[in-house]
Amino acid sequence: MKSDIEIAQSAKMLPILRVAEKMGLTEDDIDLYGKYKSKISLDVLKRNENKKDGKLILVTAINPTPAGEGKSTVTIGLAQALCKQGKNAVIALREPSLGPVFGVKGGAAGGGYAQVVPMEDINLHFTGDMHAITAANNLLSAAIDNHIHQGNELGIDSRRITFKRVMDMNDRALRNIVVGLGGKPNGFVREDGFMITVASEIMAILCLSENLMDLKERMGKILIAYDMRSNPIYCKDLKVNGAMALLMKDAIKPNLVQTLDNTPAIIHGGPFANIAHGCNSLLATKMALKLGDYVVTEAGFGADLGAEKFFDIKCRYGNLKPDCVVLVATIRALKHHGGVKKDKLNEPSVEALSKGITNLEKQIENIKKFGVPVVVAINKFMTDTQEEINYISEFCANVGVKVALTEVWEKGADGGQELVSKVLDTLQNEKSNFKVLYEEKLTIKEKINIIATEIYGADGVEYSSSANKQIAEIEKLELDKIPICVAKTQNSLSDNPSLLGRPRNFTINVKEVKISNGAGFIVALTGSIMTMPGLPKVPAADKMDISEDGTISGLF
Amino acid sequence: MKSDIEIAQSAKMLPILRVAEKMGLTEDDIDLYGKYKSKISLDVLKRNENKKDGKLILVTAINPTPAGEGKSTVTIGLAQALCKQGKNAVIALREPSLGPVFGVKGGAAGGGYAQVVPMEDINLHFTGDMHAITAANNLLSAAIDNHIHQGNELGIDSRRITFKRVMDMNDRALRNIVVGLGGKPNGFVREDGFMITVASEIMAILCLSENLMDLKERMGKILIAYDMRSNPIYCKDLKVNGAMALLMKDAIKPNLVQTLDNTPAIIHGGPFANIAHGCNSLLATKMALKLGDYVVTEAGFGADLGAEKFFDIKCRYGNLKPDCVVLVATIRALKHHGGVKKDKLNEPSVEALSKGITNLEKQIENIKKFGVPVVVAINKFMTDTQEEINYISEFCANVGVKVALTEVWEKGADGGQELVSKVLDTLQNEKSNFKVLYEEKLTIKEKINIIATEIYGADGVEYSSSANKQIAEIEKLELDKIPICVAKTQNSLSDNPSLLGRPRNFTINVKEVKISNGAGFIVALTGSIMTMPGLPKVPAADKMDISEDGTISGLF
Repeated sequence: MKSDIEIAQSAKMLPILRVAEKMGLTEDDIDLYGKYKSKISLDVLKRNENKKDGKLILVTAINPTPAGEGKSTVTIGLAQALCKQGKNAVIALREPSLGPVFGVKGGAAGGGYAQVVPMEDINLHFTGDMHAITAANNLLSAAIDNHIHQGNELGIDSRRITFKRVMDMNDRALRNIVVGLGGKPNGFVREDGFMITVASEIMAILCLSENLMDLKERMGKILIAYDMRSNPIYCKDLKVNGAMALLMKDAIKPNLVQTLDNTPAIIHGGPFANIAHGCNSLLATKMALKLGDYVVTEAGFGADLGAEKFFDIKCRYGNLKPDCVVLVATIRALKHHGGVKKDKLNEPSVEALSKGITNLEKQIENIKKFGVPVVVAINKFMTDTQEEINYISEFCANVGVKVALTEVWEKGADGGQELVSKVLDTLQNEKSNFKVLYEEKLTIKEKINIIATEIYGADGVEYSSSANKQIAEIEKLELDKIPICVAKTQNSLSDNPSLLGRPRNFTINVKEVKISNGAGFIVALTGSIMTMPGLPKVPAADKMDISEDGTISGLF
Repeated sequence: MKSDIEIAQSAKMLPILRVAEKMGLTEDDIDLYGKYKSKISLDVLKRNENKKDGKLILVTAINPTPAGEGKSTVTIGLAQALCKQGKNAVIALREPSLGPVFGVKGGAAGGGYAQVVPMEDINLHFTGDMHAITAANNLLSAAIDNHIHQGNELGIDSRRITFKRVMDMNDRALRNIVVGLGGKPNGFVREDGFMITVASEIMAILCLSENLMDLKERMGKILIAYDMRSNPIYCKDLKVNGAMALLMKDAIKPNLVQTLDNTPAIIHGGPFANIAHGCNSLLATKMALKLGDYVVTEAGFGADLGAEKFFDIKCRYGNLKPDCVVLVATIRALKHHGGVKKDKLNEPSVEALSKGITNLEKQIENIKKFGVPVVVAINKFMTDTQEEINYISEFCANVGVKVALTEVWEKGADGGQELVSKVLDTLQNEKSNFKVLYEEKLTIKEKINIIATEIYGADGVEYSSSANKQIAEIEKLELDKIPICVAKTQNSLSDNPSLLGRPRNFTINVKEVKISNGAGFIVALTGSIMTMPGLPKVPAADKMDISEDGTISGLF
């Protein structure tokens, strides 16, 4: 069995200019970053303004389990399979964060024979977007501390600085720090902390911006602190958002790469799926819709978080109309939802499957609430029995959705043909009546309540006293009429990761409420969310190496 | 008068592939980063192994003063002027650090009509080398804290971790910090600090490495901490230098850009000129020597620091033989050395000039000690009088060196023709007998003593008790037989910035001695050296902006 990096390295890549030309782009539309990566000029969007959009297919999943679902792999494999049938398909994906690459083994560029390449570059510095975000974020942080040091004209309350520094690294030691030690030349002492770069509000903003001017304006609106009289201080008060936009002038352009079989893939932006909305950039998706007849995209975590935010935040802001949802599941993961322990997942059990399938059932119901047709994709494993497969087929027939087995990890495009048929059939015969779940103009609690009861299946929502205070503060500032972004465990429909399947009779507990005013959403945190990962006992970095001839090892 | 950015933006740039082709490179030798930047494959060096090197010209200066000398501008202008005469000249320069760009106004890509372009990209993210160094550095830092957190098998003494985190930002609040706060999940509490990225030992290593394998091995040799029994711990003990090399796989390739009139410029690496050696990478210089008949390069600060380190560290490790030194001075700066205050520098004063010229005199003597012929370049200002110019000409005639007036800032290549004549004359008629100043095998104190007495003109050297202890420790580890890198004020030949001209009867005070074991030099600090700058009251960032059509303002 070949490793992902071995498969990736034996891929016959086309020069990226050829891939661009196949999409109708010219040399002037792209900026090369080496021979196999490029950025796409935003002029392409303007030029195609009046062109009809392609079909938009969202790939999402049941609640993730340790058994793995393979959502990215299905996303890439589905596009490869569409291309194999002669369709003009384009992928729109998130870009991976560098930090986790060195932590726990696990790529973000697909796997097996459904990968985007050059995977080593995509997983490392790529075209520098993450570094640009890090720099813009930390310029703002430096400007905040500098402002206080130089006299604090704005009266910033250093106990209430909400904007943190970031680094694209898994580094637990930086979660909680004290800065400014060492006396007068080094500024005032205060508590601070680093988040990983993808958790930066600037990443969320990049992914929701229409263009560089919109990005600049949104960055200016970031609420960075409060003054001593509890008035909000915004980024633009420090006059630094122009310089930040300058740092982001290339990062705002979507990146073009290809799959193992040369399907175009636009990879751009990758905000956290908990404290942010977890989708690739709006610009990447819009670009793909102008360049492809079929656009396959993905959202982070399970459908309760990823698809909900894709619909209610990204589609709302971008005025996107998704045409079809592919809901990925595996029989192993569904059995896990039915109560089977990880080491017993290889044993056949229709009984466990019948219990766990309630998770799939609820996710299907949820997507239907948004008015978008669903196709279930079962990512096939060797251990799946025919009896189990039959059980799922019957279940899907009963709830009126199509189901397809996929083997794209093992077989690439050939393993996705059944899924392609079902997706094309759906696009042709089932009309999408997409609508968002709630209106922005509702109160914060009304909006959270709708998501909790309608999507998670909760009986209601409880708020901590600090959450109540924070909501009151946001309402007082009249910044509350924007969508909600729930930060919740990905492993359960509830906010308790151990409640698998389809939990009932539970409440959602909102512990904190924060505003991402530049991005344009209010984050409701239902637990302590880690915004800076740590490295494991044996980091993946230990096995990574590069040899004299440039051969890379240990990178997945 | 046009600003630097306005001049840069009106330049007629060639596609960088055309510039590469003029140097005999093919499309396969370069990796494009947009249309006007590229990296050069290291294969080019191998392929030209047996080709004769071009002539190597080092541009250095008198001790810098607030009046400014324009060393980078002369470096670029000299190459432009050589090309105008039909010579095949190539520039080898340091790349600018992003942090200072947002601090005090001042570019690092030349100025006026002697600039390298695209200056906005060179001054911002360029090709991502700084970001790669930041990532590699901080991966090692994260690995150190993670090792301690996960059980500390190596017994690292967290009070004696010598390797710091870095960020490419001017951020005084990060100079002294406490990390690991918040209890067990966040690791052990300890003191730490951030340096600016260019101060990372990895930057120094990049600039002295022969290839990627050499880089990997040198990074493995970084002394990162001591254990509880005072044994040294090296980077390779954490097994992380393979992953760090992976992060540096593109950063090790020199970058190709061009001047305003399309002269090729190889810009690569930019280590601090105090705690490191302050020259562009050895690979960039070697590449330039294979591709150009005349290579113009530069070293940081004045000749006492920059040229000495260029000779004793870079040329020693790289086996380079410099052919000629251009020593830059201005009449204004020499008058400043003669005791004139900044606001009176526009008033003619041969008397002040005759006092201050001792600084030039000593720098000429120093360069002659290395056996390399010198040409003095006087960067002309409108306020210079003929009498002052005559005085310098006579002075240079008396000490037997050629002198030329240059006006490259105002006139580009045309302003450097006199300098070109003198340099070409020197190359043809004066043979370089280059030799390093001291042998590596001497003791640390013997080596420091030679530099202090021979180059700075000191009577001797005094050591603090901690410096003595640190020297003893390095000697005990038998790591002492490598060159010395003195960190000293750039403003004086002595270690006291207020002693201008040619100070006499002083001693050099070594306060600390540190080893950069991966880079391969021992740093002798003669004062407290700031490795993380801060932002000024009104940062340059405040005026920077980018408009809808991409026009950049406020960037110099």
